[in-house]
Amino acid sequence: MNKLQETIRLIEGVDTRAEKQMEQHINSLTKPLGSLGSLESLAIKLAGIGRSTQPEIDPATVIVMAADHGVTKEGVSAFPSEVTKQMLHNFMNEGAAINVLAQVANASVEVVDIGVKENIELPGLINKKVRLGTNNMMAGPALTREEAIAALETGIEVAEGAIQKGAKLIALGEMGIGNTTASSAILSVLGQTSIENVVGVGTGINHEDKERKIQVIKQAIKINQPNPHDPIDVLGKVGGLEIAGLAGVVLGAAATRIPVLLDGFITSVAALTAVRINPVCEQYLIASHQSVEPGHIVVNQLLGLQPLIDLNLRLGEGSGAALALPIVRSAVHIVHNMATFEEAKISGAKDGSLKGNT
Amino acid sequence: MNKLQETIRLIEGVDTRAEKQMEQHINSLTKPLGSLGSLESLAIKLAGIGRSTQPEIDPATVIVMAADHGVTKEGVSAFPSEVTKQMLHNFMNEGAAINVLAQVANASVEVVDIGVKENIELPGLINKKVRLGTNNMMAGPALTREEAIAALETGIEVAEGAIQKGAKLIALGEMGIGNTTASSAILSVLGQTSIENVVGVGTGINHEDKERKIQVIKQAIKINQPNPHDPIDVLGKVGGLEIAGLAGVVLGAAATRIPVLLDGFITSVAALTAVRINPVCEQYLIASHQSVEPGHIVVNQLLGLQPLIDLNLRLGEGSGAALALPIVRSAVHIVHNMATFEEAKISGAKDGSLKGNT
Repeated sequence: MNKLQETIRLIEGVDTRAEKQMEQHINSLTKPLGSLGSLESLAIKLAGIGRSTQPEIDPATVIVMAADHGVTKEGVSAFPSEVTKQMLHNFMNEGAAINVLAQVANASVEVVDIGVKENIELPGLINKKVRLGTNNMMAGPALTREEAIAALETGIEVAEGAIQKGAKLIALGEMGIGNTTASSAILSVLGQTSIENVVGVGTGINHEDKERKIQVIKQAIKINQPNPHDPIDVLGKVGGLEIAGLAGVVLGAAATRIPVLLDGFITSVAALTAVRINPVCEQYLIASHQSVEPGHIVVNQLLGLQPLIDLNLRLGEGSGAALALPIVRSAVHIVHNMATFEEAKISGAKDGSLKGNT
Repeated sequence: MNKLQETIRLIEGVDTRAEKQMEQHINSLTKPLGSLGSLESLAIKLAGIGRSTQPEIDPATVIVMAADHGVTKEGVSAFPSEVTKQMLHNFMNEGAAINVLAQVANASVEVVDIGVKENIELPGLINKKVRLGTNNMMAGPALTREEAIAALETGIEVAEGAIQKGAKLIALGEMGIGNTTASSAILSVLGQTSIENVVGVGTGINHEDKERKIQVIKQAIKINQPNPHDPIDVLGKVGGLEIAGLAGVVLGAAATRIPVLLDGFITSVAALTAVRINPVCEQYLIASHQSVEPGHIVVNQLLGLQPLIDLNLRLGEGSGAALALPIVRSAVHIVHNMATFEEAKISGAKDGSLKGNT
């Protein structure tokens, strides 16, 4: 059995008993019932994932996967594809948004080259190159099935490595000029929804370029005929190396019972692919933010996820995940550190829904 | 001239030149134009407030004002009014939600007794009692005009004290069983909107109690006839000591050019009162979260504010402000620490909207 099959087999559902215990604990804390809203449901979810009423999320690691896309030749992005490589330098020099946001959020960042189109060596950069960028999906499959599987397995390995180093939560990030095009194609196929419904302006293209982006995706799907019931086929034919890698990270984290904090459109599409490979993965996902990309709403609905924040972001890199991380941490600390009504000798609600000292 | 008038006179508009410089700086950073969404507008606002393209928000202090409300006699709250005092003990023992959330957010908490109905002495508790709770506004004015002014001036002093100790941002919090009733009354008068429109379930009353709450507020407004064009009259007749105190904190912070991070419904109503006293205050306000209380949407619209997060909170104490603080901090660190396109030698957008090294 290969690594991918082995990992898929290891993924188990969350612990619903721990969830129930957590709910009871939360209802004993010194606050009106339900008054911490989404923080409470988040803590319950984390209890199920961590199989404990004392779940942990620290240390947290942001895994940023980077790769290039052959489809950029078609003029689908506002930026030239060289920017992927240039941004890796920026990441390693701590000059990018994700570096700054992860520092504020007290998370480490691991940057993985899973398929940038040139060979790069930079101190700290994790070299896991599967190949030098994808093929142009307008002219044929972006990747072979074997390459898609290799990228998935690379993602599993990267997740396992981060978890071995101590990570208790993994946040996803990505860099790859052209990757909203690949993500829109994947989502259109897996979600069986129209391309117009899931294509946006990415890093900031104009109306004309957006029309071209839609035509490019239509053509790529027509030529390659990805099978919507075979997520690996879809990942290969119209996907990307970083997207497949991130799907692998989700599988690896779920198999090891570690929560995954999504970022924007691209990481959510990667997660959807993982969920289509093994639906149980869904239970390990936390949505961080609602991005401006129209496809992000579609994919979050398919995943049944409600993002924690909505700040009109459209950057990627893991930026939204880093911004939401302190909220996730707060949910955990609340249940670890707040006093109960009984401990604090506080009167309960008059209707008896909360039992205090009166 | 008394302290209140003096403070009102000191409040000046923000620095629009620093705002424009900040916008230019943000557009030079290594990210697609506008891709950090609300974080960018927040950084621009903070530049205007701080009169600098390098604004600071740390150290940040949450000021929690606590007081009691005579109107609790009418059964408007889910909790007995003793809980205000009990929660002060909880705050000082670090067992409440705000203690935990402020710790995660790296903020200090100052708890001020501005009008709890019993005398309390607790290590660390700031005693600034104006009087022992308000009168029942169903039977006459909650406070005299002099008492409302004393509470406002107390708030100004507390803000000045925190700023002298180093605070570069002040977040607002409150504790006072019955204070959504007073806040709804104030908002209904100042906003000239129907009471039904601004009354919610507070800490969790049932439908019947909510109907009573509406009738109580109607009666209080009818008896006291607060003048909608005189915010101090409104604060006194149907307000509360912690609400007036927090309005004073806003005035004091604005006079010292320090940003104020609001929490939920009650702190936003306090801020609205400050804005009605001096409209320039509005420029110093940042909305943290959208609470479940229906009046919170109304007051945010009146203030022209868009909250950063929406987590279905309805706790108060400053909890939503603490949860949003890392986002505010992120906005500041982005502009301090991200590389520019030029520094990082990254290619600009193809349409020339961003100038990089190509």
